[in-house]
Amino acid sequence: MDKILSTEDIIQLLLSYSAEQLKDLIIGIQPIDILEAVMEYDGERSVLINKLSLGLVVKLIDEAGVDDKFILYELLSESKQKQILRDMASDELVDFLESLKPQLAKEIISKLDKADALEVEKLMGYGPESAGGIMATEFIVVKEDMTVWDVLHLLQKEGKMAETVNSLYVLNEKGKLKGVVSLNDIVISNFNTRISEIMNEKVISARTDLDQEEVAHIFQRYGFTIVPVVDHSYRLQGIITNDDIMDVLREESTEDFEKMAALSHSESEYLDTSVVELAKKRFWWLLILMISATFTGLIIKGFEDALSAVVMLTVFIPMLMDTGGNAGTQSSTLIIRGIALGELSNKDFFTILTKEFWVSMLVGSALAIVNFFRILIFDRVSVAMALTVSISLLLTVVIAKTVGCVLPLVAKTMKVDPAIMAAPIITTIVDALSLWAYFTLATTILGI
Amino acid sequence: MDKILSTEDIIQLLLSYSAEQLKDLIIGIQPIDILEAVMEYDGERSVLINKLSLGLVVKLIDEAGVDDKFILYELLSESKQKQILRDMASDELVDFLESLKPQLAKEIISKLDKADALEVEKLMGYGPESAGGIMATEFIVVKEDMTVWDVLHLLQKEGKMAETVNSLYVLNEKGKLKGVVSLNDIVISNFNTRISEIMNEKVISARTDLDQEEVAHIFQRYGFTIVPVVDHSYRLQGIITNDDIMDVLREESTEDFEKMAALSHSESEYLDTSVVELAKKRFWWLLILMISATFTGLIIKGFEDALSAVVMLTVFIPMLMDTGGNAGTQSSTLIIRGIALGELSNKDFFTILTKEFWVSMLVGSALAIVNFFRILIFDRVSVAMALTVSISLLLTVVIAKTVGCVLPLVAKTMKVDPAIMAAPIITTIVDALSLWAYFTLATTILGI
Repeated sequence: MDKILSTEDIIQLLLSYSAEQLKDLIIGIQPIDILEAVMEYDGERSVLINKLSLGLVVKLIDEAGVDDKFILYELLSESKQKQILRDMASDELVDFLESLKPQLAKEIISKLDKADALEVEKLMGYGPESAGGIMATEFIVVKEDMTVWDVLHLLQKEGKMAETVNSLYVLNEKGKLKGVVSLNDIVISNFNTRISEIMNEKVISARTDLDQEEVAHIFQRYGFTIVPVVDHSYRLQGIITNDDIMDVLREESTEDFEKMAALSHSESEYLDTSVVELAKKRFWWLLILMISATFTGLIIKGFEDALSAVVMLTVFIPMLMDTGGNAGTQSSTLIIRGIALGELSNKDFFTILTKEFWVSMLVGSALAIVNFFRILIFDRVSVAMALTVSISLLLTVVIAKTVGCVLPLVAKTMKVDPAIMAAPIITTIVDALSLWAYFTLATTILGI
Repeated sequence: MDKILSTEDIIQLLLSYSAEQLKDLIIGIQPIDILEAVMEYDGERSVLINKLSLGLVVKLIDEAGVDDKFILYELLSESKQKQILRDMASDELVDFLESLKPQLAKEIISKLDKADALEVEKLMGYGPESAGGIMATEFIVVKEDMTVWDVLHLLQKEGKMAETVNSLYVLNEKGKLKGVVSLNDIVISNFNTRISEIMNEKVISARTDLDQEEVAHIFQRYGFTIVPVVDHSYRLQGIITNDDIMDVLREESTEDFEKMAALSHSESEYLDTSVVELAKKRFWWLLILMISATFTGLIIKGFEDALSAVVMLTVFIPMLMDTGGNAGTQSSTLIIRGIALGELSNKDFFTILTKEFWVSMLVGSALAIVNFFRILIFDRVSVAMALTVSISLLLTVVIAKTVGCVLPLVAKTMKVDPAIMAAPIITTIVDALSLWAYFTLATTILGI
């Protein structure tokens, strides 16, 4: 990446010049780069912040993480704070308020103009992970009998107030969304072209209560940069832009990674999280899984006699447990990922189950054959013992892959996030089942 | 998601109307929806395809997965095939050619106009996962002394040829990228505004050889919808748009999920992949990990005497192995994800190591205490035995978290993808270390 200025360069720039001189110098530097410089600066941050234009401070607060938004806000004088609240776009203001403690948010809302306060409370009512909760309400409406020429004049007057003018919307007399026209299509058409000729009436939109992950799917599927948000009566309420969705995608994948690794979710970055917070994030899952693993211990306990007769049986426990865990993880990850990307759904249940069965037979048999000769030759065990371990291995792989594909699909049916049914839980279940199979086989084949 | 027409509706539409009638009816339906309908249709697909405009067929081929592009192409008559190749944007054509067997791609390139063939060969030289390999070369260049008025006229003439006109570029006399101006800023400015007044000279660009994952980081960090691509001399070579990056993000996360679950990468969707292909994707990693797990077996073998003296020791093996695996996975996932998102790097090595040590002491001690009383009460083991298991548990968590954070960082230093150092490998290593600790402790404390 060709970064324009390093963090140190930006700090130096902010320290060396006056607010007046900076206006020109800072044009074009990306807000996120300035934000990083301000946050990394060890000295008095308010000196830096107060040299920036309020428009730029709004952008910094918007880019800042949940923990940093209020830190930046507090660096400003009271009059500037008031101004900032007025300058923020609706979605930026809502994000800011949702990053605060409820009491503090209420206090700030009480300082807003009545109209703004109502608007913000309505938006906050949608829930932070819904289309309504992430949309901006600053969009441009045009009429279908306008010409390109009319629209260009309209944009010169009103365009500065909008979040983006890359998509413009046509409403019917009841305020329902009738069509959308892209700025791209407007500027490549003649001035006297009517909007009705170039607008698209088959508008793909999101309802205000749609989950943000589903909104992200719309962007990914269609490659859009903007999606309109409508209420239950199909009246236009707001727009969601590409940059918000990039954040959602990042957040949603991170959540999936966390769930799949038995971690509780946290919004903060690793380095900003305290040891105690990190420990909390991990303890509960580990505790639950540790207690579950004792069931596997109980199974072993049930075969104590067999084990004391043939201690060698213990030697192969790690290999069986690890292979089972890995085979199950492979299946569950493929299925969880397929569901997340919308490639797999419950109607594919039997197709998947059949496929996983044959895959596990193929992979399991191959591993079992390799294993049979390996332990016969290197561990010098008896043929009966080698057979016991190898058949157990095949069974383990089949059990693991079946459990690994069934559980995420069952979770999906029960409207639980399939990512929960990942490696850790599957491993625990597979361990118990496969060791039970192993010892049962051993007592039968070896006659102990 | 408010889908406009279902797959069945679209098939019905295509079957019921003539090519002429469809022109109007199909406007606004998204290409990907039409593609799905065509691919799911059981009858003669060529009937459907040949009713669509060539412009739309180009879009379908562009949206199609690697396995389907050529299937669609082959449904067309030879004259239409020729036309299609001419109509494709440079990046679409390159994607298409890269989806084919090399021999077939060569044949098709030989059918192109000389200029197009040269262009395509140059683009294909960049490698399919670099900025050069995914960029389009159809962009609009403007001059800095042009007015908004001049640019609007230029766009009406040339805009249709470009991939997008949402960003326009200013070059200096040597063809080097000097500035960028967004269409958004153009249309909200007065007609007589000069481009030099509204262009941004601090352009963030990608070099042609930049990896596509890094390009995606630029889009995510800055929320851009378009990024220009330059060569080593900073001459503008192409542009990358948001929709391409959505695909990259999807692909890169999927690759990370696969690596972390010990799966080899494949481009095809689950349901389209044969059982044998799926088996191959999984076998090698399982084999490697199975053989590695036998080292853990060897450690157990070394303590055979202790085990036959106290068979009860075996009962706690699954709990220790599972907790170790889970604790290691938690750390490695956090670190791998942090590196992928650019939040962590090697310079944070000691910070991370210290943090993980204290987290593991905290979590491990808590688990050990719970475990001590649990097995003392429920399993009725001796205090010495409970102590052995619980201290081993603490050691296991500390070892697991240390290995789990060190290995991904070491991989990063050695320029290997950290995602490789995920659950499966870490589990295998942690198993061996923690069981060794367990048996060593047991022989010491229990005096066997």
